[in-house]
Amino acid sequence: MSCDTVAVIGGGPGGLRAAHAIAEVGGQAVLIEQRDFLGGAPIAENYAGITPHGEPARPQIERMVDLVTAHPAVQVRLGSGVTAVSGEPGAFTLTVRGPDGDQPVDCGAVIVATGFTHFDPGRETQMYGYYEFPDVIALQDLEAMLSAHEVVRPSNGQPPQRVCFIQCVGSRDRLIGNEYCSKVCCGVASKEAIEIRQMLPNSKVYIFYIDMRMYGYWENEIYWPAQEKHHVQYVKGMITEVLAKGDRLLVRGEDTTMGRPMELEMDLVVLSVGMEPSPGTRAVAKLLGVKQNKFGFIDAAGGPLDPVATSREGVFACGAALGPADLEDTVSSAAGAAIKAVSFLRSRAAAVTG
Amino acid sequence: MSCDTVAVIGGGPGGLRAAHAIAEVGGQAVLIEQRDFLGGAPIAENYAGITPHGEPARPQIERMVDLVTAHPAVQVRLGSGVTAVSGEPGAFTLTVRGPDGDQPVDCGAVIVATGFTHFDPGRETQMYGYYEFPDVIALQDLEAMLSAHEVVRPSNGQPPQRVCFIQCVGSRDRLIGNEYCSKVCCGVASKEAIEIRQMLPNSKVYIFYIDMRMYGYWENEIYWPAQEKHHVQYVKGMITEVLAKGDRLLVRGEDTTMGRPMELEMDLVVLSVGMEPSPGTRAVAKLLGVKQNKFGFIDAAGGPLDPVATSREGVFACGAALGPADLEDTVSSAAGAAIKAVSFLRSRAAAVTG
Repeated sequence: MSCDTVAVIGGGPGGLRAAHAIAEVGGQAVLIEQRDFLGGAPIAENYAGITPHGEPARPQIERMVDLVTAHPAVQVRLGSGVTAVSGEPGAFTLTVRGPDGDQPVDCGAVIVATGFTHFDPGRETQMYGYYEFPDVIALQDLEAMLSAHEVVRPSNGQPPQRVCFIQCVGSRDRLIGNEYCSKVCCGVASKEAIEIRQMLPNSKVYIFYIDMRMYGYWENEIYWPAQEKHHVQYVKGMITEVLAKGDRLLVRGEDTTMGRPMELEMDLVVLSVGMEPSPGTRAVAKLLGVKQNKFGFIDAAGGPLDPVATSREGVFACGAALGPADLEDTVSSAAGAAIKAVSFLRSRAAAVTG
Repeated sequence: MSCDTVAVIGGGPGGLRAAHAIAEVGGQAVLIEQRDFLGGAPIAENYAGITPHGEPARPQIERMVDLVTAHPAVQVRLGSGVTAVSGEPGAFTLTVRGPDGDQPVDCGAVIVATGFTHFDPGRETQMYGYYEFPDVIALQDLEAMLSAHEVVRPSNGQPPQRVCFIQCVGSRDRLIGNEYCSKVCCGVASKEAIEIRQMLPNSKVYIFYIDMRMYGYWENEIYWPAQEKHHVQYVKGMITEVLAKGDRLLVRGEDTTMGRPMELEMDLVVLSVGMEPSPGTRAVAKLLGVKQNKFGFIDAAGGPLDPVATSREGVFACGAALGPADLEDTVSSAAGAAIKAVSFLRSRAAAVTG
């Protein structure tokens, strides 16, 4: 028997958009989220502003949550994870382990919206001292500081005078197996750099990069103002290590444009960590039997013109479960996955009754 | 009276996906295309391969066309353009001028999928000699050559030995008012460079760039193989002019990494032209009364989390009508626009009958 419900796994921006989109076009959705709350990384990691313009993240994500929780066609299961999958496309049964124990959830199609995890910048190949020096932090740590309106050096609680961002930490790096670009870090770092310059007008803020990937409007909306209005210093270069020097940090590398080694003292070093598949993405891919690419993200089996199909019929994916994605990419591909899932169920229903 | 049809203006990849998506979830669509055929730029300009992997473009786009023309819920109007708009959200009437003269089309919502036009590299501020030297061509000219499996110097019909791409022609350029990045040109140029190297193994191929914006998987899927497997030469630099030298072209500029001026002789120069709003995008925006941004693209009024809303209720936009977009962006935002349009009509119908 075919089932007219779509299960959406993951309650971040992608899952929220997918579930609401399904409901908007007359479908039924069950949204399964492992955390006790909806909203995903922007809420869990306390994002400050949304790239590119820096509108506060929380109210915008909460609006998406409200749309979902208010809609009678979406059933939300918090604190819940999928532990088993049986059945077949059109008539899957997921075992969902939640507050009330294991429960079966029948669904005709599944959307995987399990997102990414930040690259762990403490991996041994990374010489940046993330777990060694308190004043070496990552993009998401700074987001939380910006949300609290308190950007300080963790070592002494004082506002930093000199801050730098190191780009491509965990991205474009064959040594660690992440040859891809994580897409959003150039934009996010630049947005955060602007926010620091606004909050601490006497600070100096540097961004060390390989290429500034400010695609589309991010170029004119972030990159130009960062340089011209907010005086963020962009330096094309490779940082090879971060060392302690007195109570500051010594950042060493090469200024590629000047063709010379550089050493700069900093109060706060922000590692622009890339995206890796979340543990949920890896686990759910295995349970559903969908192919993952060599990096562990869900393999987009349909190519650029069908970006949400997976290797299994009836199973679709969206957002950063498929690979690096910004928020706009995520909500767009979520809508694409919603259409595909609803359409899949309609075509099966038509085949049965036709 | 409310109307349950969505008018989709533009029959390129975005419009095709939007129209099919509407039909997939039970809606009705009218697809209005000014050309006598569907498929948009990839067909009109004879694209060879789709970025990143270079699968032949035509059969993939034709598959999208077939889905639309075969669907009973989509009505296609070829050789047709919108000349007037009346009514209001929920009950618009478009005047569509086509082979049978002016005809009214009633629709409850509109999706603008009118796409982009290539930047004209002959504008007077551009010192590249596009209209002066036959061997200076643009990305889309090379696509057509690649489709014909004949990459030659237009001046003499001989295969070129030395080819270069000049990036950011018409993009990232305040002088001409296009401060944005056109997003796809780095990937498209690199894909074309690979195709030339495969077709003409003795050629040397250079790409002069500011930043290589190979976001996401384009990094590992195009940029690394271009360098390592296909030996495309990437040079960070600015090209300031192209001159004639004997029967070749002299390309002059600065090698930024080496910090010195450079002069190179080339047989074929390819200008990586950016995207500008198509004349259709500008015209339709005015007719519908939706806000355009300073560049003339449709203004995305809803921000990153609602990327297909325009300034007018009931009017949505997708793909490159909103700004630089790759094909994946385009089909994703088209699905997003389809959901929004269908949902808008459903909510109005519910309000009327409820």
